[in-house]
Amino acid sequence: MAKLNTHYRQLKREYIFPIIEEKLFSFKEKFPLAAVVNLGIGDVALPLASSIATAIENATREMTTVTGMRGYGPSEGYLFLREAIVNQEYPSVGITPDEIFISDGTNSDASSIHELFSSANRVAIVDPTYPVYLDANIMAGRGGRVTLLPCTKENQFCPTPPSDHFDLIYLCTPGNPTGVAMNRSLLEQWVAYALKEKAVLLIDNAYSAYVTSSDVPKTVYAIPGADEVAVEFRSFSKSAGFTGLRCAYTVLPKKVLKGKLYPMWKKRQSTKSNGVAYPIQRGAEAALSGHGATETRAQVATYQANARRLKAALSSRGFTVHGGIDAPYLWWEVPEGTSSWEFFDHLLTTCHILAIPGRGFGAHGEGFIRLSAFTTPEQVTTAEAALCALE
Amino acid sequence: MAKLNTHYRQLKREYIFPIIEEKLFSFKEKFPLAAVVNLGIGDVALPLASSIATAIENATREMTTVTGMRGYGPSEGYLFLREAIVNQEYPSVGITPDEIFISDGTNSDASSIHELFSSANRVAIVDPTYPVYLDANIMAGRGGRVTLLPCTKENQFCPTPPSDHFDLIYLCTPGNPTGVAMNRSLLEQWVAYALKEKAVLLIDNAYSAYVTSSDVPKTVYAIPGADEVAVEFRSFSKSAGFTGLRCAYTVLPKKVLKGKLYPMWKKRQSTKSNGVAYPIQRGAEAALSGHGATETRAQVATYQANARRLKAALSSRGFTVHGGIDAPYLWWEVPEGTSSWEFFDHLLTTCHILAIPGRGFGAHGEGFIRLSAFTTPEQVTTAEAALCALE
Repeated sequence: MAKLNTHYRQLKREYIFPIIEEKLFSFKEKFPLAAVVNLGIGDVALPLASSIATAIENATREMTTVTGMRGYGPSEGYLFLREAIVNQEYPSVGITPDEIFISDGTNSDASSIHELFSSANRVAIVDPTYPVYLDANIMAGRGGRVTLLPCTKENQFCPTPPSDHFDLIYLCTPGNPTGVAMNRSLLEQWVAYALKEKAVLLIDNAYSAYVTSSDVPKTVYAIPGADEVAVEFRSFSKSAGFTGLRCAYTVLPKKVLKGKLYPMWKKRQSTKSNGVAYPIQRGAEAALSGHGATETRAQVATYQANARRLKAALSSRGFTVHGGIDAPYLWWEVPEGTSSWEFFDHLLTTCHILAIPGRGFGAHGEGFIRLSAFTTPEQVTTAEAALCALE
Repeated sequence: MAKLNTHYRQLKREYIFPIIEEKLFSFKEKFPLAAVVNLGIGDVALPLASSIATAIENATREMTTVTGMRGYGPSEGYLFLREAIVNQEYPSVGITPDEIFISDGTNSDASSIHELFSSANRVAIVDPTYPVYLDANIMAGRGGRVTLLPCTKENQFCPTPPSDHFDLIYLCTPGNPTGVAMNRSLLEQWVAYALKEKAVLLIDNAYSAYVTSSDVPKTVYAIPGADEVAVEFRSFSKSAGFTGLRCAYTVLPKKVLKGKLYPMWKKRQSTKSNGVAYPIQRGAEAALSGHGATETRAQVATYQANARRLKAALSSRGFTVHGGIDAPYLWWEVPEGTSSWEFFDHLLTTCHILAIPGRGFGAHGEGFIRLSAFTTPEQVTTAEAALCALE
């Protein structure tokens, strides 16, 4: 009989979303007229920018012509998009277009990069974080070699390099769910650690568009030496409203692991992927310059303003809230003696606000609630008023 | 130091495409005025159907509105598309929409399905075939447990079930590169084998739209019992001109391996994928009914007519050509004493026709040339005339 991959059984995470759904359902049964402000979701809320839509439409229509038809594109993405990314996002850090690999999501790339490595490596993953890094390693039978790096109040949610050796380190900065980003000094420490240990940093940087602090680099490649040790995952999802359009990219510099990793990823991608839809790549290109850049920057600014308002509203009521400066998430300390789930319930029934209990992102998320700023200013106003009920 | 996945070194396939590129380049240097008829490429040639473009455009514009914006979609694809697929492609074989998983390509799915299985399984893969099944297994360290099932003239390029046990069997029917499809009787044998051995059939059926023989089922699920043993990969690439748009699907019935496989694939997909762009799924939906279905059927008919004409032109000149009836590929027997590469060269320099040497698809492809019908009728006319030079 065909034998199954038994490592899937080790996926023991508490699946919070079905529980949240159930709690929301019960709430709505009890209070059918109550309007819930959804600050739980990590998905964009504003409509797609018009200039992106126009670019997608034009590219699609182009494909209906004999000269404009496009079949299989390059698995690593069209050069026009890779060049636009380098010009806009990596203008002066030495990254070249052939070090950019377009994909349908950071999710896909961050969950498959482990394939390039031996399962004998020692892996470290920040906790709490986006669950995919850990789950992908568990599913591939690598769970037993993973060590969690706690992101706690003590380290301001950004762990420093450990004293012992790791080969692969998954970092997420600006951090989801904590909303806190690593500053230059800490990134320098991580790059120095990786250079010394001959390790590879796998950095999810999907929220770089939200960075506002002057001491937080928008990319790890601003740190000298990072191009020898770091792979960076970036996305159009949160910077340009692409969660429903699927376009992201991985930056894998040729110098990483003395040039050995680059041809493997290239091989992996050309074998397992046929790239991203041509019109979607044209849409992503449109987000990077001209009117598209203006439109998407305005969307990011809206979410940033939402985050600032929510943070101010909570702080003024005496709550302790982290994040929200360099990321669209707030990491709200749950009152002493209350669990994440208890505070989630309290927030829902008292304020009609939906949040996410921090433990859904890992054990070290207990004691916190994640609030997302991916909503409209109007909903923030409603939330501000609703928070009075907590007093 | 981070240790690499050494299995990549076992990818020893001859990479024919760079060699073809080089040969084409030399040819064009020598004969700068010669027009080459490209019958090598497995990519669609006709422009995108207008009604598909309209559906994509409309869906994109819809996303610019407050009510029409779509963020993350379901990782398994939108229900509207899964329902349309069942209605159009599986109307009476018992497949339900929740057994359809939308993805960005058969490539992605066929190269990752092995992840659900233990590496202790014995794997069989047809040869010659689309290289990805084997390469994905090699890259995952499973190459040592793979046995090739030769597709030869003796078995009409469709192997019968072996006498010994295998757990996973990769089949490709209608076959790429052979252009030959398994008939009902043979599929029945394979289903019976899999039921007896408790094995799983992994069937690449990307060319089902090209089936014309009455004894060739368009899906394996036309065979009773197949829904207990078979996973089928289907695509819009070749049926609706989607190679540049990226939309495909995997059919994974709940009954396979007594229900154990289904939740694993669902888990795998929801962890590693955020689905396919909403406008692209609307485009795929448009290809399945109304004017879109008429347009795409006409495209398929054009390629089918191309295949018939090329086959007739070769047969009338005394060549032996297989396939082309249920698939857009011809499998041309190279004259006795000539290698695939020699005949490739001969065809290019004598007829200015670009083909693919069969050995590029596996060892058992030696002695054959693949001709693709994915071209325009005008190019076929040019090719017909050019073939005279072979006499």
